[in-house]
Amino acid sequence: MFIEAKYPLEGKPSPPNAVWPHPQQITISNDVLYIRPHDLKIDSNIRSCDIIAKAIQRYEPIFFPPKLAMIYHRPVVVINDSVTLVDSPRFQHRGVMLDTARHFLPVSIIKKNLDVMSYNKLNVFHWHIVDDQSFPFQSTTFPNLSRTGAFTPDHVYTPADVSDVIEHARLRGIRVIPDIDTPGHTYSWRKAMPELITVCWANGKPNQAIYGVQGEMEMFNPLKPRVYSTMDALLRENSIFSNFRPIAKVWTKCMINVARLSNPAITQWMIDNNINSSVGLHTFYANRILNITRNIDVTPIVWQDVWDEKVELPPGTIIQVWKDSSDNSAFGSWAAYLNQAANEGYNVILSSPWYVNYISYGKYNTNTSVMNLEFFKYYEVEPLRGFTGSDEAKKRILGGEACLWAEFVDGTNLLARLWPKASAVAERLWSAASVNNSEDAQFRLDVHRCRLLRRGIPAQPILNGYCGNYEVGMARSMVNDPAFNYEDGSPTESTTIDPSAFALRIGNSKIYYVLYINSFIFFVLGL
Amino acid sequence: MFIEAKYPLEGKPSPPNAVWPHPQQITISNDVLYIRPHDLKIDSNIRSCDIIAKAIQRYEPIFFPPKLAMIYHRPVVVINDSVTLVDSPRFQHRGVMLDTARHFLPVSIIKKNLDVMSYNKLNVFHWHIVDDQSFPFQSTTFPNLSRTGAFTPDHVYTPADVSDVIEHARLRGIRVIPDIDTPGHTYSWRKAMPELITVCWANGKPNQAIYGVQGEMEMFNPLKPRVYSTMDALLRENSIFSNFRPIAKVWTKCMINVARLSNPAITQWMIDNNINSSVGLHTFYANRILNITRNIDVTPIVWQDVWDEKVELPPGTIIQVWKDSSDNSAFGSWAAYLNQAANEGYNVILSSPWYVNYISYGKYNTNTSVMNLEFFKYYEVEPLRGFTGSDEAKKRILGGEACLWAEFVDGTNLLARLWPKASAVAERLWSAASVNNSEDAQFRLDVHRCRLLRRGIPAQPILNGYCGNYEVGMARSMVNDPAFNYEDGSPTESTTIDPSAFALRIGNSKIYYVLYINSFIFFVLGL
Repeated sequence: MFIEAKYPLEGKPSPPNAVWPHPQQITISNDVLYIRPHDLKIDSNIRSCDIIAKAIQRYEPIFFPPKLAMIYHRPVVVINDSVTLVDSPRFQHRGVMLDTARHFLPVSIIKKNLDVMSYNKLNVFHWHIVDDQSFPFQSTTFPNLSRTGAFTPDHVYTPADVSDVIEHARLRGIRVIPDIDTPGHTYSWRKAMPELITVCWANGKPNQAIYGVQGEMEMFNPLKPRVYSTMDALLRENSIFSNFRPIAKVWTKCMINVARLSNPAITQWMIDNNINSSVGLHTFYANRILNITRNIDVTPIVWQDVWDEKVELPPGTIIQVWKDSSDNSAFGSWAAYLNQAANEGYNVILSSPWYVNYISYGKYNTNTSVMNLEFFKYYEVEPLRGFTGSDEAKKRILGGEACLWAEFVDGTNLLARLWPKASAVAERLWSAASVNNSEDAQFRLDVHRCRLLRRGIPAQPILNGYCGNYEVGMARSMVNDPAFNYEDGSPTESTTIDPSAFALRIGNSKIYYVLYINSFIFFVLGL
Repeated sequence: MFIEAKYPLEGKPSPPNAVWPHPQQITISNDVLYIRPHDLKIDSNIRSCDIIAKAIQRYEPIFFPPKLAMIYHRPVVVINDSVTLVDSPRFQHRGVMLDTARHFLPVSIIKKNLDVMSYNKLNVFHWHIVDDQSFPFQSTTFPNLSRTGAFTPDHVYTPADVSDVIEHARLRGIRVIPDIDTPGHTYSWRKAMPELITVCWANGKPNQAIYGVQGEMEMFNPLKPRVYSTMDALLRENSIFSNFRPIAKVWTKCMINVARLSNPAITQWMIDNNINSSVGLHTFYANRILNITRNIDVTPIVWQDVWDEKVELPPGTIIQVWKDSSDNSAFGSWAAYLNQAANEGYNVILSSPWYVNYISYGKYNTNTSVMNLEFFKYYEVEPLRGFTGSDEAKKRILGGEACLWAEFVDGTNLLARLWPKASAVAERLWSAASVNNSEDAQFRLDVHRCRLLRRGIPAQPILNGYCGNYEVGMARSMVNDPAFNYEDGSPTESTTIDPSAFALRIGNSKIYYVLYINSFIFFVLGL
């Protein structure tokens, strides 16, 4: 049997078709607006932007999914001028990080995930594209990397695949930021470029894996000049690298083993150069890589580790905060890191509380309801809670990212596992700080998850209950409908970028949904 | 970034196409057996059994999935007589419990799940078909129960649906056991039969929900004669009730409130009948329901609570153990419950350590590898570890069940969340007790999960790595292939049951896979 904390069994009534994330200003009348599909006209005052033109085209079947159109096919149209909506985002960087190295994610899944991101007004796809486990990125300069480092020749992203993803994202107002993880996490490079890697030592022996701590051969040797020439060539190679994050956390223990205890060449070099710790070695590496980014004029984003280790960072560097005291007592709190980094003049992205791969079961009880614990945990985060810096410093908190590391994730479970959890993050980053009533939000989010189901996304439930006759497995389910699925790896044409403000106009009414967008932000009508 | 315990990055080689669950006897040669699809003949020495005949028919496309046939289409056939396999199950009751009340599961999903169960030699589908949240079971005697208690008219199991599920299960060697939960968990009955329910009281007021403890109106009033006439009629109604479990855990706190503090009619009745606790009231209820089961000649299965409360149980009653000290310090250990119940002469089913809805993240480290924590936790259970009873008592441990309560589960995530976790339970219940090396098993299970992917089941990963070009989202994925999917609610014809031993014969070889089956056990070739 089952000991359970009980939900209110029938739930609170939630506003029909509540918009998610909650807009900055919205007035809702109690009247119901019935729409006949052929009466709906979506219009824009921007003529020159393909993003808008294609979005209008795309949204017609999204508003009225093929098998579900009858739901909206009501005979009466009521126009009500009290209904207004003005919107803009609170934070400019609203991202999802996917890891395609621990498991491969086919392009079709990545594109479907970009669709869901756009339905949640998320605008950054941080693509952790390679790691120890595999190297699926097909480099044109160094094709051996994926030839020897991908799981199989089917588990690669060709240049056409990458362009396809970037274009699919662009049309949805999403920026793609690739993440080439170095100097650690480079085990998958070893076959193509063994000379770049130094092995881990333990008990006086090379090539030793210590389970739970390190792999046997997992990081660059920072003394090899070819490390830097390779990184320079790789980072210049492809249009994907308009932004990038070349530096990642180092497996410090392995670094210490290499530097201090085992590799005589590195030990001697450190003595000669007055470097007396692995931190110094990391600093040496990071400075050289950051110099490369200066020369090719991109904005580096670094995981916070290089900043922790006092590496001098170029102006404009963005620090991604991932540590928190709740993970490791040696860490500070993420709020303290945010404060400190912004006050030191760095731009900051927050990820620590949004590692959504850390699944957990259960509920959070209040006096009046019982909430899904994961939803509550992600929704309750307030990036600026306790922020003590100046208004100027506050502006340097650019936003945040939900990170889904893929140890236990692939195409089988990605969409259900990420959604609607990442929707909680999306509202936190888009809506006003005052939109923070999680008891109310859980019911609005439940409505939103039904909307996602209607758009073919198998978003999992967060409350007991139901959506409608389009649930997964029912005859009207959209999840396998061709309208909401992509062929694996079919590229689309490439065009130029010109995002700007736009408006949607519905039918003959005077209702304008106006939004002010400052970079790659996209609007989704809450139908 | 990501602090992770590292797997052996390339893993141990696993036996190609390892059979899961591990057979009782198997000899494997190092030679590879290549099979051309049109050379494979599956034969049986049993002519009169439709289960065998239809399985043979069904397995041809399962062995050679439409889009993947080329994988096996190799030119050379090698026949090797050293290859032998003899098999039989260790435990007779190997089940999966699904809950279709907290969320509705369409028939198509239930049928697909029955397919996976058969691929794992599981033979009992425990159908927790109604609960507080909804009453999807369409009773012919009491149609108002589902008319008023189902989420919507689309969220019901019609008599045809139920027959369809039972027949689909039967052809796969699976018994269906329905579970009508009483006297608690009956909130969904209230609209059709308000006179059966007594409300919960708190602070002197009726209809009070205490979040996290009780709903406002959730249990039968055991004093109402109509409770028993209704249960009698319902349990006699339909062929689904050949086995059943009419009794469930009681929400004791509500019962106490009702009996002691608030409802004067019940309080007076207890005084008159010398019943001085809610346990006595529960005993009164349970005895009456168990009398009904005696009269209609079915085997009752009870959650352990009625046994805990010393209710006198009819001979042959099966006790399902679900409590454990790890959940609640007031409970004993499941091993102690198993010992005690079997020694008292009851048959027992174990579920406590296999509540697979309790998801958790992480890994279990040993000196030589890092395992998926959930896999490790479920696989390491040994039902007879520490069993001190007689051999006779030991035989009364009938088996176990993986239970998936559906608070956060529906068609979006059921298959990925349950598989291959329940496969760990399946091997524990099928294979010899000596098959218990989890470090070896994790790699065999990883192979098995790829097999499930090839059969259209989106079983999620348990290790870093990959399967092949048929992963979900790739062009050759079978997950949405019509060959492995069912239309929602399409009934199949009904036939009679005659299961028995059978053999499979491959091609012209002398290889016979013989198995001795004692009830509804099914054999799946490990291709």
